[in-house]
Amino acid sequence: MESFMIYMPIAMAVLGLIYMWVKQSWVMKQNAGDGKMKEISDHIYEGALAFLSAEYKLLTIFVVVVSVLLAIVSIVVPTTHWLIVVAFIFGAVFSAFAGNIGMKIATKTNVRTTQAAKTSLPQALKISFGGGTVMGLGVAGLAVLGLTAFFIIFFHTFMGASWTNTMDMTIVLETLAGFSLGAESIALFARVGGGIYTKAADVGADLVGKVEAGIPEDDPRNPATIADNVGDNVGDVAGMGADLFGSYVATVLAAMVLGNYVIKDMGGAITDAFGGIGPILLPMAIAGVGIIISIIGTMLVKINSNEAKEDKVMGALNLGNWVSIILVAISCFALVTWMLPETMKMEFFGEGLQDISSMRVFYATLVGLFVGAVISSVTEFYTGLGKKPILKIVQQSSTGAGTNIIAGLATGMISTFPSVLLFAGAIWASYAFAGFYGVALAASAMMATTAMQLAIDAFGPISDNAGGIAEMSEQEPIVRERTDILDSVGNTTAATGKGFAIASAALTSLALFAAYVTFTGIDGINIFKAPVLAMLFVGGMVPVVFSALAMNAVGKAAMQMVQEVRRQFRDIPGIMEGTGKPQYDKCVEISTQASLKEMMLPGLLTIGFPLIIAFVPMLFGMSTLAIAEMLGGYMAGVTVSGVLWAIFQNNAGGAWDNAKKSFEAGVMINGKMTYKGSDAHKAAVTGDTVGDPFKDTSGPSMNILIKLTCLIGLVIAPILGGHSAETDIDEVETIEVSENVIIEGTQDLNNKTETVVEMVKNDATGEVVANVEIRRTVNGETTIEEKSFRGTEEEVRSQLKDVDGIKIKVKDKE
Amino acid sequence: MESFMIYMPIAMAVLGLIYMWVKQSWVMKQNAGDGKMKEISDHIYEGALAFLSAEYKLLTIFVVVVSVLLAIVSIVVPTTHWLIVVAFIFGAVFSAFAGNIGMKIATKTNVRTTQAAKTSLPQALKISFGGGTVMGLGVAGLAVLGLTAFFIIFFHTFMGASWTNTMDMTIVLETLAGFSLGAESIALFARVGGGIYTKAADVGADLVGKVEAGIPEDDPRNPATIADNVGDNVGDVAGMGADLFGSYVATVLAAMVLGNYVIKDMGGAITDAFGGIGPILLPMAIAGVGIIISIIGTMLVKINSNEAKEDKVMGALNLGNWVSIILVAISCFALVTWMLPETMKMEFFGEGLQDISSMRVFYATLVGLFVGAVISSVTEFYTGLGKKPILKIVQQSSTGAGTNIIAGLATGMISTFPSVLLFAGAIWASYAFAGFYGVALAASAMMATTAMQLAIDAFGPISDNAGGIAEMSEQEPIVRERTDILDSVGNTTAATGKGFAIASAALTSLALFAAYVTFTGIDGINIFKAPVLAMLFVGGMVPVVFSALAMNAVGKAAMQMVQEVRRQFRDIPGIMEGTGKPQYDKCVEISTQASLKEMMLPGLLTIGFPLIIAFVPMLFGMSTLAIAEMLGGYMAGVTVSGVLWAIFQNNAGGAWDNAKKSFEAGVMINGKMTYKGSDAHKAAVTGDTVGDPFKDTSGPSMNILIKLTCLIGLVIAPILGGHSAETDIDEVETIEVSENVIIEGTQDLNNKTETVVEMVKNDATGEVVANVEIRRTVNGETTIEEKSFRGTEEEVRSQLKDVDGIKIKVKDKE
Repeated sequence: MESFMIYMPIAMAVLGLIYMWVKQSWVMKQNAGDGKMKEISDHIYEGALAFLSAEYKLLTIFVVVVSVLLAIVSIVVPTTHWLIVVAFIFGAVFSAFAGNIGMKIATKTNVRTTQAAKTSLPQALKISFGGGTVMGLGVAGLAVLGLTAFFIIFFHTFMGASWTNTMDMTIVLETLAGFSLGAESIALFARVGGGIYTKAADVGADLVGKVEAGIPEDDPRNPATIADNVGDNVGDVAGMGADLFGSYVATVLAAMVLGNYVIKDMGGAITDAFGGIGPILLPMAIAGVGIIISIIGTMLVKINSNEAKEDKVMGALNLGNWVSIILVAISCFALVTWMLPETMKMEFFGEGLQDISSMRVFYATLVGLFVGAVISSVTEFYTGLGKKPILKIVQQSSTGAGTNIIAGLATGMISTFPSVLLFAGAIWASYAFAGFYGVALAASAMMATTAMQLAIDAFGPISDNAGGIAEMSEQEPIVRERTDILDSVGNTTAATGKGFAIASAALTSLALFAAYVTFTGIDGINIFKAPVLAMLFVGGMVPVVFSALAMNAVGKAAMQMVQEVRRQFRDIPGIMEGTGKPQYDKCVEISTQASLKEMMLPGLLTIGFPLIIAFVPMLFGMSTLAIAEMLGGYMAGVTVSGVLWAIFQNNAGGAWDNAKKSFEAGVMINGKMTYKGSDAHKAAVTGDTVGDPFKDTSGPSMNILIKLTCLIGLVIAPILGGHSAETDIDEVETIEVSENVIIEGTQDLNNKTETVVEMVKNDATGEVVANVEIRRTVNGETTIEEKSFRGTEEEVRSQLKDVDGIKIKVKDKE
Repeated sequence: MESFMIYMPIAMAVLGLIYMWVKQSWVMKQNAGDGKMKEISDHIYEGALAFLSAEYKLLTIFVVVVSVLLAIVSIVVPTTHWLIVVAFIFGAVFSAFAGNIGMKIATKTNVRTTQAAKTSLPQALKISFGGGTVMGLGVAGLAVLGLTAFFIIFFHTFMGASWTNTMDMTIVLETLAGFSLGAESIALFARVGGGIYTKAADVGADLVGKVEAGIPEDDPRNPATIADNVGDNVGDVAGMGADLFGSYVATVLAAMVLGNYVIKDMGGAITDAFGGIGPILLPMAIAGVGIIISIIGTMLVKINSNEAKEDKVMGALNLGNWVSIILVAISCFALVTWMLPETMKMEFFGEGLQDISSMRVFYATLVGLFVGAVISSVTEFYTGLGKKPILKIVQQSSTGAGTNIIAGLATGMISTFPSVLLFAGAIWASYAFAGFYGVALAASAMMATTAMQLAIDAFGPISDNAGGIAEMSEQEPIVRERTDILDSVGNTTAATGKGFAIASAALTSLALFAAYVTFTGIDGINIFKAPVLAMLFVGGMVPVVFSALAMNAVGKAAMQMVQEVRRQFRDIPGIMEGTGKPQYDKCVEISTQASLKEMMLPGLLTIGFPLIIAFVPMLFGMSTLAIAEMLGGYMAGVTVSGVLWAIFQNNAGGAWDNAKKSFEAGVMINGKMTYKGSDAHKAAVTGDTVGDPFKDTSGPSMNILIKLTCLIGLVIAPILGGHSAETDIDEVETIEVSENVIIEGTQDLNNKTETVVEMVKNDATGEVVANVEIRRTVNGETTIEEKSFRGTEEEVRSQLKDVDGIKIKVKDKE
């Protein structure tokens, strides 16, 4: 029986998308300003579209290649269905479409914000945040819509829309993993390619424009100016959107996979009001409700006074954020108690089955919400203006760039301390409450407010762009002052948003990691096995090398930009006098091409390593279970090291940035007020140069690296794993055959199960008695189950065929 | 029966020490030069002694505190013997004594090298390398002497000098771990404290001297000059010596522990010509032979021509190094085939017992020698003058400090790629050849040439000092030219030496990690358990935070130095004119105090975290085995992340250093020769400022952090572990008692063994038949062993008491 609840998330997603459409129309109806403003805005819009269309071309090739690979896999591996290809393509298309909506609205909202800022700060906030809201709801709405729709389709296709067994549900979810893989692939392009784009354009514009030609930032005479502004949208809007789209989908998926294993642990089926799939539906339900809550949250973000300063704007955002977090907590309580059995059974590694009340699952969701809220404060502390770490970097700038760099590096490194303790505590606590299902639901609860988070995030670059347009179109100072207030708040939310993105990537990866282990059916991941330990090392190395490649990519792409800008300054007559027109599109094209080209190598590293680890040892005849464990070690290495390097790089970069910004208002160094242009400021600028690729390219790319690694693992899990629909019976051996007694043994190595069937036939009555001993070894503990059947031989054999879900191949007596 | 081979390593060590003494006397007899040279040299010598004596004071307190803690542990835990305290103290004293010898000879050799350089380069090399040889043999000789002597003492004490069983040998080796812990504790002070010292003095001297007062480096008017020169000895001589002393001892110890487990796997006893402990003696024998080989190697290091350049000197060092590596390979072959059984049995995780030929152990040692040789080339490639990565950093210096920094960071990060693949391959290969015993012997073989490596290492700072003395005492230019040749070669060997030190630390930690797992008797370390995974995260974070603390410590200590130098310039009349005498000792004191104070926090972090993880959960009643697994996860996290950060920081620092040095001879940038004093050079100097603490403080400290973490784990293993002398029988339950049948079950949870004893008494004859079923579950595989005894009840019960080493507590029938 199918439950109506399966359609609830879709309804919520559609509601969210309708609200998005309404909001979008409202924003588009706002005044887009006069000629020059409009012209600049159009340039940015067109540049963004140029990047998108170049990205889509490359993406199409990528999607086709991966689809073919997946199709081959689905042909070769019996448990992988070809529908995974369809899911993959739709995942990619949905994510790309969400990014498209976000980019378009962001590049349309910026100029309208500038126009509104001419008269009213509250209206400027309303418009810029409105643009962010459209972005947030687009991402969340499409993510939930796509995931839920495909779940329903596969649930109908593979299970006839009603519960059969966990094995069939595993196939549903495995196919669904294609959607998640598609979404995360787009994130690779948007986050990594976008990260390279934004910094290459920024550095290129600054090096030639500010340093060589001596013209100010955002000056329309600089051919790279438009590319620079496009970059803000490409990196901060589309990149962040695709990142969170990927996390959102992957988290819900992982929670569903683990929900399926809860049902398995409870005996293979449960009875509830939701067609027996309450634990699987719950994460989707939380995501669906989260959309509505986010809408409520965004409605609370407003200010009334035209004289408001940063604190009021920040307060408005905080109000919306906190209310949505609290509402999610309340709805988690309601949904958990409603949708889950009051008491569940969950298998705890090494501790066997335990009774877990639904309230404990609720506590796990609270852990997730706590992490989401606290990680932002931690990030804020290490990167916030006026905070101790920033003041220290400012002080260290007085002795030169060297000490400034050391201080920034040290700040980023030390910031891993509270962050990692927070994550470690969260893993521990949510696991203690409700096993890995708890960990995944903690992540789901945290991600429920994704739409709200994205709205807050996207509002920043929109305001930044609005300020740029005000500058380029030479508006009254009051306009820039107002956009600066929004921009300044946007800088803070950008940092905290990055913290949220890391936390989401970390928890998502853990959930995927847990799903991977259960999918493959391996007996845990034992790093005392040397090959697994070796892979842990290799996995730890990959984020470090990836970061270096990303940083080098920025350098290379920036150099191409520098040469193009120099060429235009040289070749276009009258460009410096404002009479010759710079070829903005050339610069946009160069950033676009260079960034997409330069992301190839890190991208290959991300995708190639897990595939090499999975398939090369296979050629040498290594057992798939041993490979699965090695790949698990690799995934753990990537996740641990990736999270560390993400925190380190993001926070160091953020800290350098704000240390530099501190000089704008002036800082007290050794008792003297020091301003822009001082030696200390120059040192701080050097620090910021190092920090830029850290915080905008390599740092955020770590999120994609770790999630994509774990997702690839999940998708190839069926090839390695032993949970396949037909149990692999590795050995069927007739141990003893006498006239009346047949002892048959089967050994299912994958599930660590040994089954011995002894059949005794009473020659007089013809009755057969079958004694079955099933010996399961889980984590070193062996449990023996005995069953007995009686009847005609045919009856008994028929009964034997489905003993507790384990298919026993009964050999006929020869 | 005791084998003479047990005394062989001691004999070799004593031979090495005698040769050291001869060499030392020879060096001391050389001409120590005239008045001014001698004066400066004496200042450096006294400064070094001042640091040592301050360090010893602190050390004494530390040793007393740890001894008390260890004593308490030995009282509380029955399997930890109080002799561990004695071993710990001696380990600390031996390592400190070795450092003392090295510091003294280094600070005496420098001036003699300067004096010799007045007339002859070959003689200058002979003296400076002679000083290095004294250092190398002092460290290696004392390490082998101490470790072997204590092994013999404990072997006599606990086993009466003949094989009893693996349990008793475990106690011997556990007690011996105290010696290793003592040695590594000294390394913490010498490497971390020394690393802070050397950079604080360096930065302090440069900032006020070169930058503020405008006087050249090594100018005798600078009060911090002596401290700077002392720092070279403290960091590069004593620090490196203590580091390798610790690795050396720990590696051999770990190999012995794993050798003991080989014997266990072979049935608990073997018969060979070495009293049945061949596999345990082998690592010591390799170390002993390695000393003699190193002596041969050092004898080959000489040049004949006074006109020789860097390549000849490097060639001489390479000759000595390669000959000793080849000799070690040959002697490993001889020792392995002689001392090991032709075929051994080793337990492979998840694969059960396997037959391993002694040749495979030899192959494992080759893997170690290969890693030691290749890692130096990798380091050389990423940090060597004229190599591609350095040239790239030089090019990137032309666009400013920011791009220089990014290029240096990226170089360090990318250098983790080949290094980690090398380590991962080595783990895999040596494990595939001969299990974790193979991994430990790979490390032992690599470490066999420690004396030679240290001689090469120590020769560098001696030559550096010799050059400084030549400068300060205003010698003829030819003297400085000759010492510069030696110094330049020394810079290369310093970088490759760091590579060797990391490789040794990495392999040592792995060997210790393996010893830890076997010591505790846990069933591997499964990172799919959430608490273990959480600790993997925490472990991964610690090296990052440690590095940041170490870098900040340099900054703080340098600031104190700056203030003192400023004060002296202000307060001492005539100091700049050379009429007033600077108070060198004040600066030395400040570096000393500051560095020892600043190393407290990182030291506490290193020691505190494993203790917290081990003991806090105990208070909450967590099972010791679960804690042991968590601690294992932590150790793995520290090792993986620590190795990565060590490679990253050392190579980035080395690369920046040589990028800066490239400007001295001039470099081609954008088609123009660029020299010292250019903007690009200034950018490179900034990079070097960042790189200095990387390569001399935080980078090398990682070695100590990972080894000490694993050693602490090993020392507390008995508290957590289940291998204790009396098997913990967790449950003795009389399952069924009827008149004639007694079924008793015991479950030894630690060894995953279940034993069921069924005794049937024949009432007629009084004879008892006991059927014993022992069910062992190792890594998910259960093996069942059945035994049967027959006799009177008393006889049977007596026989039952020692079934295959598992003590069964037989309950009397009540």
